[in-house]
Amino acid sequence: MSSSTVGQVIKCKAAVSWEAGKPLVIEEVEVAPPQAGEVRLKILYTSLCHTDVYFWEAKGQTPLFPRIFGHEAGGIVESVGEGVTHLKPGDHALPVFTGECGECPHCKSEESNMCDLLRINTDRGVMIHDSQTRFSIKGQPIYHFVGTSTFSEYTVVHAGCVAKVNPAAPLDKICVLSCGICTGLGATINVAKPKPGSSVAIFGLGAVGLAAAEGARISGASRIIGVDLVSSRFEEAKKFGVNEFVNPKDHDKPVQEVIAAMTNGGVDRAVECTGSIQAMISAFECVHDGWGVAVLVGVPNKDDAFKTHPVNFLNERTLKGTFYGNYKPRTDLPSVVEKYMNGELELEKFITHTVPFSEINKAFDYMLKGESIRCIIRMGE
Amino acid sequence: MSSSTVGQVIKCKAAVSWEAGKPLVIEEVEVAPPQAGEVRLKILYTSLCHTDVYFWEAKGQTPLFPRIFGHEAGGIVESVGEGVTHLKPGDHALPVFTGECGECPHCKSEESNMCDLLRINTDRGVMIHDSQTRFSIKGQPIYHFVGTSTFSEYTVVHAGCVAKVNPAAPLDKICVLSCGICTGLGATINVAKPKPGSSVAIFGLGAVGLAAAEGARISGASRIIGVDLVSSRFEEAKKFGVNEFVNPKDHDKPVQEVIAAMTNGGVDRAVECTGSIQAMISAFECVHDGWGVAVLVGVPNKDDAFKTHPVNFLNERTLKGTFYGNYKPRTDLPSVVEKYMNGELELEKFITHTVPFSEINKAFDYMLKGESIRCIIRMGE
Repeated sequence: MSSSTVGQVIKCKAAVSWEAGKPLVIEEVEVAPPQAGEVRLKILYTSLCHTDVYFWEAKGQTPLFPRIFGHEAGGIVESVGEGVTHLKPGDHALPVFTGECGECPHCKSEESNMCDLLRINTDRGVMIHDSQTRFSIKGQPIYHFVGTSTFSEYTVVHAGCVAKVNPAAPLDKICVLSCGICTGLGATINVAKPKPGSSVAIFGLGAVGLAAAEGARISGASRIIGVDLVSSRFEEAKKFGVNEFVNPKDHDKPVQEVIAAMTNGGVDRAVECTGSIQAMISAFECVHDGWGVAVLVGVPNKDDAFKTHPVNFLNERTLKGTFYGNYKPRTDLPSVVEKYMNGELELEKFITHTVPFSEINKAFDYMLKGESIRCIIRMGE
Repeated sequence: MSSSTVGQVIKCKAAVSWEAGKPLVIEEVEVAPPQAGEVRLKILYTSLCHTDVYFWEAKGQTPLFPRIFGHEAGGIVESVGEGVTHLKPGDHALPVFTGECGECPHCKSEESNMCDLLRINTDRGVMIHDSQTRFSIKGQPIYHFVGTSTFSEYTVVHAGCVAKVNPAAPLDKICVLSCGICTGLGATINVAKPKPGSSVAIFGLGAVGLAAAEGARISGASRIIGVDLVSSRFEEAKKFGVNEFVNPKDHDKPVQEVIAAMTNGGVDRAVECTGSIQAMISAFECVHDGWGVAVLVGVPNKDDAFKTHPVNFLNERTLKGTFYGNYKPRTDLPSVVEKYMNGELELEKFITHTVPFSEINKAFDYMLKGESIRCIIRMGE
């Protein structure tokens, strides 16, 4: 990264996905300079999230290829486009798949992080500014993914989707905050808000669910009940504070009844991280009347219907959903990084694997086999 | 009320319901002294609520007759049973259909008012202490209703269901706080919590809905949108702060879409006071993504199912229900009375009729014809 690259096209390596489900290919790509309101980042570390795999497999969505995936990453600002004032070259930064324009009703509301302008858009493969890509190979445009495309040594991101963070924070750890970990963590800390000594049920013990458990642990919950169809996940989950486990397959009764029986009427909070509609209903119905709060995180199928008896609400239960853990990326991520720096939030537990960029396809294998929570990809290696 | 009645059976007038749907009959009843943990109240004013009418009609429930209805009232403590320390003869008091034992997990939680011991029970016609009635006519037991039975000059109530209030407050006004008005008011103030300048939709402009609107007015909401199938209700509702009106029958589109179009994407808060399952779904779906909160108040049919697409939650909408406006009767009612005393809460608007006790059946007529919001019944006349 030198000042000589400012305003110039940068040639660098990127892992290009040419076709749905086929191994990524490391290619030399051209990365155009940032336009107005954009930032060009040098990516140092990126990690793989299930959402990358989902859109790479492109089952059931309109495929958009060739494309550069990747949306969890840490990097350094190489240059900024016209009008960008909150970032400058050299800043340490996390790109995020959703943004914060600062101007829309959502950004101006204390209660929302669903920015009208920069809300996640998985169909768009171009930049908002001019509907063009910033990536190309010999003149052929390569599409972006959720505005981040971090499987590239350099990428261009809307400045509203870039959080400036403490330069003392190790980017190979905090890069995981760009998506799944904050999603689960914030669902508990910001939305479910369990009190110290309370009980929390976590549905689904994947990366997001483990992050939700970590949020419950940080909040001081005393009973953290993991719910998963795979019993072997309990062992790993203990590191994240999960201290009881229920496998719905082990019971004849609906899991909400099992949990109610374990907890004298229901848990104080539940966080649903699977996206299964049945788990959503169970998560809601397993919270205690009078004060129980259930939070939906997992993304359901398009045709699912949430169905329950309305008396479950009238008995003073609350159901809410969350997007990216209700964190506003630019405003809130610096404080999450500080939670890691002061030892409150333990990110190392999430990082089960690391690979050099040249072996990025191994990260996909680990995830598809269910072996990894997070695999860090070291760029430039 | 004299000390000579303490510990004695009191003979007084009560309006007895001998048979479902038949006019009440003013009878001389015997009211036994309060047992341990109970209070005997002299009722000065009572008002009629739709719930009295519902159980008097006894359509679809197990009928329990003869019974003394009534659960909105103001009175004075005549005597207290053993162990009652928070009330003494002469205290001004409001009996409430739900209670606060002070000892159960709900009473100890800041978040719940659904007392395990004294939660509403519409089937029970006897006192908890000994499963007996305190009312009789020539030896024949007369059943209680929701532990209050205020259509009697004297009644016996569990002390946990009696709120001590400011003796300067006029009982002929504050008696309406025992049920419907607090239910609607608290749904908005305590649960929906609209911010000053926000928009609130109120589904159903009966007494509870008007109280919810009053709560929105007190909270400083700037747009209060009434939704009702009867357009003529809008005129009366204006007194309660309702400044816009939608009749779902006037539109081809679902009412949630009509409201979203009026409010640039949805209201900030919605409060559902009809109990219609379709209105519940509309109330939830008409709140804005990112920050919208819908609160269910109306009691649904037994077999209703609440059904919506889970993405409505994931887009950061919240759905919660409330019971008695989340007020803890003993702890919170005194402060609601103060809201009336300082002019913040306007109770006079709710009181459309008054009748002497001897004409109590007129109160039923007014309600059945939809003419009254609240009709105050003057005992002893």
